[in-house]
Amino acid sequence: MESTKILLDENEMPKKWYNILADLPTPLAPPLNPATNEPIGPEDLAAIFPMELIKQEMSPEQYIDIPEEVRDIYRLWRPSPVYRAHRLEKALGTPAKIYYKYEGVSPAGSHKPNTSIPQAYYNMKEGVERITTETGAGQWGSALSLACNYFDMECKVYMVRSSFKQKPYRKSLINLWGATVVPSPSPDTQFGRKILEEFPDTSGSLGIAISEAIEDAALHDNTKYSLGSVLNHVMLHQTVIGLETQKQLEKVDEYPDVVIGCCGGGSNLAGLSFPYLKDKINGKKDVEVIAVEPSACPTLTKGKYEYDFGDTAEMTPLLKMYTLGHAFVPPAIHAGGLRYHGDSPIISNLYADGLITAEAYHQIEIFEAAVTFARSEGIVPAPESAHAIKSAIEHALKCKQSGEEKTILFGLSGHGHFDMASYDKYFSKELSNE
Amino acid sequence: MESTKILLDENEMPKKWYNILADLPTPLAPPLNPATNEPIGPEDLAAIFPMELIKQEMSPEQYIDIPEEVRDIYRLWRPSPVYRAHRLEKALGTPAKIYYKYEGVSPAGSHKPNTSIPQAYYNMKEGVERITTETGAGQWGSALSLACNYFDMECKVYMVRSSFKQKPYRKSLINLWGATVVPSPSPDTQFGRKILEEFPDTSGSLGIAISEAIEDAALHDNTKYSLGSVLNHVMLHQTVIGLETQKQLEKVDEYPDVVIGCCGGGSNLAGLSFPYLKDKINGKKDVEVIAVEPSACPTLTKGKYEYDFGDTAEMTPLLKMYTLGHAFVPPAIHAGGLRYHGDSPIISNLYADGLITAEAYHQIEIFEAAVTFARSEGIVPAPESAHAIKSAIEHALKCKQSGEEKTILFGLSGHGHFDMASYDKYFSKELSNE
Repeated sequence: MESTKILLDENEMPKKWYNILADLPTPLAPPLNPATNEPIGPEDLAAIFPMELIKQEMSPEQYIDIPEEVRDIYRLWRPSPVYRAHRLEKALGTPAKIYYKYEGVSPAGSHKPNTSIPQAYYNMKEGVERITTETGAGQWGSALSLACNYFDMECKVYMVRSSFKQKPYRKSLINLWGATVVPSPSPDTQFGRKILEEFPDTSGSLGIAISEAIEDAALHDNTKYSLGSVLNHVMLHQTVIGLETQKQLEKVDEYPDVVIGCCGGGSNLAGLSFPYLKDKINGKKDVEVIAVEPSACPTLTKGKYEYDFGDTAEMTPLLKMYTLGHAFVPPAIHAGGLRYHGDSPIISNLYADGLITAEAYHQIEIFEAAVTFARSEGIVPAPESAHAIKSAIEHALKCKQSGEEKTILFGLSGHGHFDMASYDKYFSKELSNE
Repeated sequence: MESTKILLDENEMPKKWYNILADLPTPLAPPLNPATNEPIGPEDLAAIFPMELIKQEMSPEQYIDIPEEVRDIYRLWRPSPVYRAHRLEKALGTPAKIYYKYEGVSPAGSHKPNTSIPQAYYNMKEGVERITTETGAGQWGSALSLACNYFDMECKVYMVRSSFKQKPYRKSLINLWGATVVPSPSPDTQFGRKILEEFPDTSGSLGIAISEAIEDAALHDNTKYSLGSVLNHVMLHQTVIGLETQKQLEKVDEYPDVVIGCCGGGSNLAGLSFPYLKDKINGKKDVEVIAVEPSACPTLTKGKYEYDFGDTAEMTPLLKMYTLGHAFVPPAIHAGGLRYHGDSPIISNLYADGLITAEAYHQIEIFEAAVTFARSEGIVPAPESAHAIKSAIEHALKCKQSGEEKTILFGLSGHGHFDMASYDKYFSKELSNE
């Protein structure tokens, strides 16, 4: 049998991140100051972000060095493995070759530490002592908690209330790494208190939690805010995924025909696909890049491409992105990490230019795909990651019909060890599609 | 910085298991038929085990081939990584070098699939269609469920009641891989009903669950029983851990002074240490091998070395082992996998011969060590595995006092993603030492 895992040595881990801003066919629409409708400058962001991240947010450089201190921590789990899904292929009876890059090997169980580590690092270098953030499913909150722990910083996490209830053990994980976590909306901020008063039964949303975390950072000394997706510097840090994957697939002489990732804010898809999109933009290779989202929060497939706020309280700059509107509160589906009303401006730009396509699936078929995967490959996927699995299965089954031997690559962004309550609901038929 | 992870290619994975029976200085005392006090023969075990496993149980061969079909599944996660614990060393300020072999990378999250896969395989080869077993913490039950799924067999798991309540998500995992799980004692067996009648509030024990699983196998067609620890063939299969580790440490020119493993039935410790004990028995190398157990279930440190039953209902052959008595019901501590009243006969033999030493620790200091580890290395350890961490920390701190630069190797047998409720109790100071 051909090799199951394709591994890299630590010394093959990328030394630079890839910045797709340098290669976009259509320049990125700038973030706007909502008061003036003028593009914002670095100084407008300095209240909540450290200067190095602001520079990266706007950098025209094609490659940006990964600091040695960040690489030292990456090495605790990176390079992450690429698997050939032999058993899934066999279960489907497809002539397609299916590969997946597995980010669940990080201590937090997802791709999120790829950016939480450098974000905490740059904050620490600039003397910041405390970081606030929001989290949906808890993957980002636990990843930032882990990162702050490594650099001996305080961390406060505002966790979307529906996930806080559904995933109590992600909360425990945040505590284990020494951070503080509260359900959002919370009584700890002015905006949280306002929402609680108006909508005491709200299940919360990422937009609300972002507003709370920003308000907290703005009002406390030596405190900055950190975002786990959407922004350019987050996409940048995640490209370590795709850069590694390219090296790994080169070792087995493969180049994917299709690259698939689940897409909430977009960082997981960006991380895997941007190095491949570089080749596509340059005309070097043709590759189909697919963003997969829940039908319950269909940002790309049903949203509008326009300037909108990143948060519910309208505290952020205006970002040009596919959006369902910043007041949108999605149903409390179990893929809590894919419930954001908007999408990364870069992902939105690429989608508008036709360089990325999008698909949406319902919750129940997502869990069906997750079970098929767990029963063939063994690994229990996070419900978010199962969106990519579902799409990969669909494309592999199309190959079965057409006889095409396509090479399909998908991102398995995290494991589902903290999502077993959702699996229980799927098995007991308590899940709905909305 | 020196390398953090030491990896092997799939083609470096061992092709044979190491059978320490061939090298024991004192021959193993045979299992006895309780009715006659005579050694039992292969035919006495044939009702509940397939013949190939019975042969392995009694084999005098020093090395036994790993079937290709088993290696194909091992390759989904093996070879597993060895880590140099740079950050833990730094946190402790020790001159010792600490390495750990991490078995949490298996889909079930522990070392248990190393034996569940071959056990299911040999059963399948002999036409068995259904396997029964017991499980403590749920790690073994989920591992056997995973294995039966790969070979398309039915699986029924009797799970110790205290763990069934404490660890609901290991139960979900068992369901996800398609097996059936019930709390033990259960109304599904004659022995379970008897215990439930006499002790309706019992927290259960591995001894009781074993009795139920054996009764079920004996009374159903085409059904065999499978044990996750204690027996010789289980120790054999686990040696893949230590054989890999030896190759990995050779790559960095290291040979451990101390090898540490947590010890319930003993398979995790056996797997890591037996290839090293071979060198010790042969006089090739000196190495200290340490079994770490909970003070609440101190089999080696306080048990007696004598013939005893493996289960509560006295259905098994008599095994010569360190035992607390087969009626012993340990407190419901959170390291559910270390609550067995006895110990592997091979481990017991080696301990009696002074080739292994033993240490016992209380629950609260175990969780303290687990948190120290999670906050330095990132990985969340299972409470069972944290026993090895505690001992490794103690030995590293002794090196700090003495200035010795010992090389300490411990087995991190599994992750704690399904044990977060126990961590919550530790943090809220609800844990006791008994």
